[in-house]
Amino acid sequence: MKPEIEAKLIQRREMIIDSEEFLALAHLESEITVAFFEYCRENGFLCIDVPHLTRATGACENFDTIFSTEIQDTIVYLSQTGQLYLEAFLHKHPKTFCIGPSFRKEERVDSRHAIEFSLCEIEVANCDLVQLREHAQGIIHKMLFNLRKCNAELDLLGIEKSWLDSLEPPYNVMTYEQAINSLGLPWGSDLSSDNEQKLVRINELKPLFVTHYPQEIKFFNMRENRDDPRVVNSMDLLMPYAGESLGAAEREEDCQRLSRRLDSSLMLKLMTKAIAKEPGMQGKSYEELKQEGMKRFEWYMGIVKKHPIQHAGFGMGKNRLFQSFLGAKEIRAAGSFVVNKDNLM
Amino acid sequence: MKPEIEAKLIQRREMIIDSEEFLALAHLESEITVAFFEYCRENGFLCIDVPHLTRATGACENFDTIFSTEIQDTIVYLSQTGQLYLEAFLHKHPKTFCIGPSFRKEERVDSRHAIEFSLCEIEVANCDLVQLREHAQGIIHKMLFNLRKCNAELDLLGIEKSWLDSLEPPYNVMTYEQAINSLGLPWGSDLSSDNEQKLVRINELKPLFVTHYPQEIKFFNMRENRDDPRVVNSMDLLMPYAGESLGAAEREEDCQRLSRRLDSSLMLKLMTKAIAKEPGMQGKSYEELKQEGMKRFEWYMGIVKKHPIQHAGFGMGKNRLFQSFLGAKEIRAAGSFVVNKDNLM
Repeated sequence: MKPEIEAKLIQRREMIIDSEEFLALAHLESEITVAFFEYCRENGFLCIDVPHLTRATGACENFDTIFSTEIQDTIVYLSQTGQLYLEAFLHKHPKTFCIGPSFRKEERVDSRHAIEFSLCEIEVANCDLVQLREHAQGIIHKMLFNLRKCNAELDLLGIEKSWLDSLEPPYNVMTYEQAINSLGLPWGSDLSSDNEQKLVRINELKPLFVTHYPQEIKFFNMRENRDDPRVVNSMDLLMPYAGESLGAAEREEDCQRLSRRLDSSLMLKLMTKAIAKEPGMQGKSYEELKQEGMKRFEWYMGIVKKHPIQHAGFGMGKNRLFQSFLGAKEIRAAGSFVVNKDNLM
Repeated sequence: MKPEIEAKLIQRREMIIDSEEFLALAHLESEITVAFFEYCRENGFLCIDVPHLTRATGACENFDTIFSTEIQDTIVYLSQTGQLYLEAFLHKHPKTFCIGPSFRKEERVDSRHAIEFSLCEIEVANCDLVQLREHAQGIIHKMLFNLRKCNAELDLLGIEKSWLDSLEPPYNVMTYEQAINSLGLPWGSDLSSDNEQKLVRINELKPLFVTHYPQEIKFFNMRENRDDPRVVNSMDLLMPYAGESLGAAEREEDCQRLSRRLDSSLMLKLMTKAIAKEPGMQGKSYEELKQEGMKRFEWYMGIVKKHPIQHAGFGMGKNRLFQSFLGAKEIRAAGSFVVNKDNLM
């Protein structure tokens, strides 16, 4: 988008809520939401009302960025993902989706993070990474299709249709191992934002799927690769400008492995530290606190045990995708109300 | 619905998440969401991503039930409504909507309250109560239409189509004054749940609109009636089983009156008490705290001042409507994850 427009759209909403540019932005955002919703409906997905207040099972791998609140003596966590709740239906209905806020307690204010953003999630039974990629590409194609119809808004914000065309699927795919080799990084490194943009540039500024990350840096229920247990069958989509905009994976259906993975996960460690501060938990040993953490996942583990079906799913950060569609340097420009700690209103 | 099914569906989700009945419930809930979304799209509404973390302007009149969390030294409130954010666009785009969680810190666990539920909201420019009623009835008609297609799920839960037929719009309308007279209540009384069901019974178990409530018991921006300033141009929809399921009103467009109403509102009083506990607010006088409260609404007041257009809107409690469609005594039975303080998972 035009730099002067972006400079305007990163301002506090109080300053610009009245402007033509802000309305155009909301209009495009609406089209993206509609595209996701309609894709899901046309393809037989059930829309699930996932809870946003949970006892911990709304956490993603970054438990250290979870918000909490309380009611009487109960600590309640604000959800970061509805994934486990979507998975719960799959043995009876093969496709589920949700769309809603994801909350992250990000203390830094930078060009890529927010404390609240819109997350579009799907889960699919009998599905692997290849099929999941088709869904991701199908949704993005529909989003771009809807955006292209908004001539006045695209013109006003200075977004070229040729830019949208350049983002059309299908996308190239490389493994994590290929990615770190081409970047000269050691095994186990997480990809920084700069790394991601470098990969995108090598890929001629096109979106790029990176698959099979080391299991240590990913969510506990991503499915271990049976040939190479160092990695999970995961897949991130890296977009120009926004970087990682979609996180996908096959889910572990082997209850034994899943339980072992949860037990040794960094998430559970961080959760244990949080639980230690809850009322009634004072004086408990680390092992007791950890058991309490495991207990909160019992309902989910129970479903996997009873219905060990192959399935896979993803979460799309709607504002990250939008940032890329807009060609914006700042996530704050990529949505009506992308909330960070400094722009709350 | 069949009492034995309802007894099952009010259980903790961990116990029933695996059951046919729970899936059927989610299926019907999905159809209701889709109906709302599609109605809005077919009628030219923009889908707005409203923020769920705010500095206070996500509060409805019940500020005493607002959840808070914090990030560094900033207190953040969980939103109860996206209304003001939807209104902000109306001078440029005449129709907006949102759908998402509403958070209420309800310490009681009863048959009608939840700490998180789904709220469907619309705001419309150049619209009065009569036109707003058409939208409400149009949406409910579409919801019932979609539900009627789910033969297997309705059968499984024991929901008669004749029951759904009996809930079809159009609905009768009475004023608050007529309502309290028929109940033998004094002016100014809020209607209890029992009162609501009595009115519904008098109305032959059909949904009923009650209009023109006393301004003291309603949100500060509901439009004062110019002929009878005791009341606001508001409208609640009372449903069998669920009671108040929709709260609608014309919005005040006269900035002077609006400012006076905010200044004297109970909401601002309660907010002032909350602000007094925020970091940096110690030692401030009541008047200073109140000014801080008013300041948080400045962006909204600024829009009304600059664009004093007639407009109106409503919030529908999706789970309350669903409760009525199901014929369920308990709100907990009316949604996949209707969260209260005892059933968090």
